[in-house]
Amino acid sequence: MAPVRWAGDRLLLLDQTRLPREELTREFACWEDVAEAIRTLVVRGAPAIGVTAAFGVALAARQSRATTFDSLLADIETAIKGLAATRPTAVNLFWALDRMRSTLLAGRAMSVDAIRSRLLAEAQAILDEDVAANRAMGDHGATLVPSGARILTHCNAGALATAGYGTALGVVRSAHAQGKVALVWVDETRPVMQGSRLTAWECVRDGIPHRLVADVVAASLMGRGQVDLVVTGADRIAANGDTANKIGTYALAVLAHHHHVPFYVAAPFSTIDPTLASGAEIPIEERDPAEVRRVGATVTAPEASPVFNPAFDVTPSELIAAIITERGVFRAPYSFRR
Amino acid sequence: MAPVRWAGDRLLLLDQTRLPREELTREFACWEDVAEAIRTLVVRGAPAIGVTAAFGVALAARQSRATTFDSLLADIETAIKGLAATRPTAVNLFWALDRMRSTLLAGRAMSVDAIRSRLLAEAQAILDEDVAANRAMGDHGATLVPSGARILTHCNAGALATAGYGTALGVVRSAHAQGKVALVWVDETRPVMQGSRLTAWECVRDGIPHRLVADVVAASLMGRGQVDLVVTGADRIAANGDTANKIGTYALAVLAHHHHVPFYVAAPFSTIDPTLASGAEIPIEERDPAEVRRVGATVTAPEASPVFNPAFDVTPSELIAAIITERGVFRAPYSFRR
Repeated sequence: MAPVRWAGDRLLLLDQTRLPREELTREFACWEDVAEAIRTLVVRGAPAIGVTAAFGVALAARQSRATTFDSLLADIETAIKGLAATRPTAVNLFWALDRMRSTLLAGRAMSVDAIRSRLLAEAQAILDEDVAANRAMGDHGATLVPSGARILTHCNAGALATAGYGTALGVVRSAHAQGKVALVWVDETRPVMQGSRLTAWECVRDGIPHRLVADVVAASLMGRGQVDLVVTGADRIAANGDTANKIGTYALAVLAHHHHVPFYVAAPFSTIDPTLASGAEIPIEERDPAEVRRVGATVTAPEASPVFNPAFDVTPSELIAAIITERGVFRAPYSFRR
Repeated sequence: MAPVRWAGDRLLLLDQTRLPREELTREFACWEDVAEAIRTLVVRGAPAIGVTAAFGVALAARQSRATTFDSLLADIETAIKGLAATRPTAVNLFWALDRMRSTLLAGRAMSVDAIRSRLLAEAQAILDEDVAANRAMGDHGATLVPSGARILTHCNAGALATAGYGTALGVVRSAHAQGKVALVWVDETRPVMQGSRLTAWECVRDGIPHRLVADVVAASLMGRGQVDLVVTGADRIAANGDTANKIGTYALAVLAHHHHVPFYVAAPFSTIDPTLASGAEIPIEERDPAEVRRVGATVTAPEASPVFNPAFDVTPSELIAAIITERGVFRAPYSFRR
């Protein structure tokens, strides 16, 4: 599965808003459309957003008619600003944009065309590193998975959320390859349903045994002893281990704690934001009420009802058994240097 | 709001599957169609199901061509069996059917026509008593609501779930009438969305300040200190206070416990099943996987994904701060005699 791909002169994105009904790949030749694709969830998942934004910068360099470094820099700063404004919570987005800016600045002495090439190569490197990181993360994470495990996951932290393979679902993939996975409980993940639309689709494609449940079922499964561990992805991790992830993650962490089920987070090292002491400082995106008031064309609530639609919540580090990264498994008290 | 009504020679049900898009009242002249309406959620909510089933028995008596008591009894036993087979979890259904059977048996010496009249009067009495019980429950429950309360409720335990007024939402209505309610957080309640479709609709109609949230948001609200109490309905309460209610209720009880938020259950006394020592004995209905795989015409999951779709879960009594009935407020250790 390659949700984000470069094709010679344009970026290809698998349109995740169409899944599981159809597999439509869309082409992007300008950064403005890439920003809109991030905003509208054509591509989503913290690592995939970072990779996509990096290619957005590479596209901006191609679009720019600049012949001098300074005018190229100005055009690219505009693109970086526009791409950064799409989603506030996922830190990989800002990390990838910073890395692209550093690449640009490091090329100050080069020709403008050479800088364009280097930016594209850097975006591709971010993509390749993401896949490699996910595979390493999967191997580290699989050591935490007991044989015959029944694993609960939330949202989509799979191949679709990354450049391929996945973070939380990468751990599941690695454990599955080792024959350890009895069942994956896939949480639907209202309101955008990334679990039922995307994670279930990945499980079907890869033959991973799974069962789809409404989000409200998780507690009942844990109460019946049918969940051995929970693993989710992350959109931003503060220095103390507090973790922002898809809304609903905090509930799972509390429920897991109550039922003595280990709760793990899997995310690339770039998800860690050392500038934030705790999760209280993580900005939480609020999205369109329409996501809650209807599904497709079906109206599910009165138009007159006000809606609160936060896209993320923050899980305090004391509820997290371990954070799995490509550099290994971290446990409290968190000190992310390795 | 009168979701269940008798109209001279037929039963009228507000079709709850059409809300909030349209307010359609359907007419029923035979018990078989009433059973189908209960099965397909045209009418739902434990108390409303009980009242509807009672009228189903009254309709069966009208349908019967019996001229002797014994043949009328046979026809009605068939109807009771059919009505009882619709939903396994809600005990009010069985309670209402038992009460109708007792009325029938008590009329053994009467004419068949007189029995028909008495059965109809008994169904109407069950309806009238339900509304009166809900109002009494609302008054008892309102004493537990602090001024300026932000109340979270799940599913629909409102006028629509009863003969009118509501159980959990009846408590909210009484507290609102006393000027105590700052805000009602309305949980969407996947997969059938009785919260967003029905509770939000009732709040709009009655001018109760509310905000709709996806089920996964509740933990986050509690973590931010934005919930002062949780109140839900019940479908069956065991002798020890263990309570079966809509799937997702148990999660809210665990989350409330973790956040030191009181969790209340409001239900008519007929919801208590003294024959069950604990919640482990309550049968849990599983419903069609299609409820989770699509919303209206919109496909939200691969057809190939297996689904687990339980309609209810059981909350252990130790997580319940109090059970509110028309006979007063009960607290642990539960002894339901009053």
